[in-house]
Amino acid sequence: MPHFPANDGRPAWQALVLTLFPEMFPGPLDVSLLGQARAANIWSLDTLQIRDFGLGRHRQVDDTPAGGGAGMVLRADVLGPALDHAKSISPDAPLIYLSPRGTPLTQSLARDLSEGPGVTLLAGRFEGIDQRVIDARGLKEISIGDYVLAGGELAAMVLIEACVRLLPGVLGAAESLASESFETGLLEYPQYTKPRDWEGLSIPDILLSGDHKKVAEWRRRQSEQLTAGRRPDLLRTTRTSK
Amino acid sequence: MPHFPANDGRPAWQALVLTLFPEMFPGPLDVSLLGQARAANIWSLDTLQIRDFGLGRHRQVDDTPAGGGAGMVLRADVLGPALDHAKSISPDAPLIYLSPRGTPLTQSLARDLSEGPGVTLLAGRFEGIDQRVIDARGLKEISIGDYVLAGGELAAMVLIEACVRLLPGVLGAAESLASESFETGLLEYPQYTKPRDWEGLSIPDILLSGDHKKVAEWRRRQSEQLTAGRRPDLLRTTRTSK
Repeated sequence: MPHFPANDGRPAWQALVLTLFPEMFPGPLDVSLLGQARAANIWSLDTLQIRDFGLGRHRQVDDTPAGGGAGMVLRADVLGPALDHAKSISPDAPLIYLSPRGTPLTQSLARDLSEGPGVTLLAGRFEGIDQRVIDARGLKEISIGDYVLAGGELAAMVLIEACVRLLPGVLGAAESLASESFETGLLEYPQYTKPRDWEGLSIPDILLSGDHKKVAEWRRRQSEQLTAGRRPDLLRTTRTSK
Repeated sequence: MPHFPANDGRPAWQALVLTLFPEMFPGPLDVSLLGQARAANIWSLDTLQIRDFGLGRHRQVDDTPAGGGAGMVLRADVLGPALDHAKSISPDAPLIYLSPRGTPLTQSLARDLSEGPGVTLLAGRFEGIDQRVIDARGLKEISIGDYVLAGGELAAMVLIEACVRLLPGVLGAAESLASESFETGLLEYPQYTKPRDWEGLSIPDILLSGDHKKVAEWRRRQSEQLTAGRRPDLLRTTRTSK
């Protein structure tokens, strides 16, 4: 079991999520390491129900797209006040809108966000949100991948999980961050464990040799070959950005 | 509210998740459209507790990495039987391991998977899983993005949500799929809705013109400009793959 430091007086990393489905939270974020880290006040999680900022007796939050088309668009005059309220709760956190149009989430972006005060995340639904609220409130658009979800909630959870596991004290052993995919700019090498033979397949001899230098070289070469074969784009990105 | 067809005798799209944390499911997958679609038997969700296949009195599932290093690796002689059991439940579904080393999930891959019988998803934890079980069981590795999570469970949920919303009868209006990000190979154009003026910002005149052809042209141009500015890699992919 990992050890969590006692609350050291440092403010917790704050996640605040604006959503029409606050009942989805904390959900999967409450189990295992992340749940324990939240109990230890390493991070905090709050939700804001967008409908509380809805208009009129029916608390309307959306309307039809200007120019026509299917679906509904979340209104700027609902999201604006909701975001302003969020800002009053968590004044220093960046305002992020989860959207397939956004900057792709990467390990390096997750690390940057984990080193800040936290995140305020707007989870959309329907056809999207009025562009004016993105412009007027300076929302940073982030995408967790090139696919479309039913809403931004799962994307918000993914971003939170990617950040929180990087916070000091969340993972048991600090080294387990060092070798994993993307931390070296490469995909992770293959892993093996007991038993030595399974269904006629053996662990590669070199891993059982006890020669730490050779093991490290083998793993590095495996990572390079795997990355070159599966994701040559990552090698290009690494070279360009360094 | 969307309308769901009565159960037409077609087998539901089956999602089966192998996990150490079955209590995370259905969780976020049980709300709104996805929850309603599951109630309408458009798709089904089951979990398999990996620990039930664990070894000995303590139901051990993992061991230290061969060759040294931090963390623990899920054992092949635990995952093999678990996957074989999954295969007996859902014989035709592809076996997918959620891993940052995998093929990136895209809208087109989500569509392919949604047109099949379902998916069997292995959600890992710790440092990963023994490579031999990936090889021996022909696991397809899929990544939801270039970042690392605490486990594969949220990635499994993301993959499921991306697929299920594409199943016939899940979304209200079929057209709302047509204009969204990636379905055209482009990012989606900006959306606007009432009120016409908000904080001194107006809806672009063309969207209020009633000229459907001009609106369509404007949206297409916006999509193209947005994609060229933010994600030129998508334009390259589209040209190459067509």
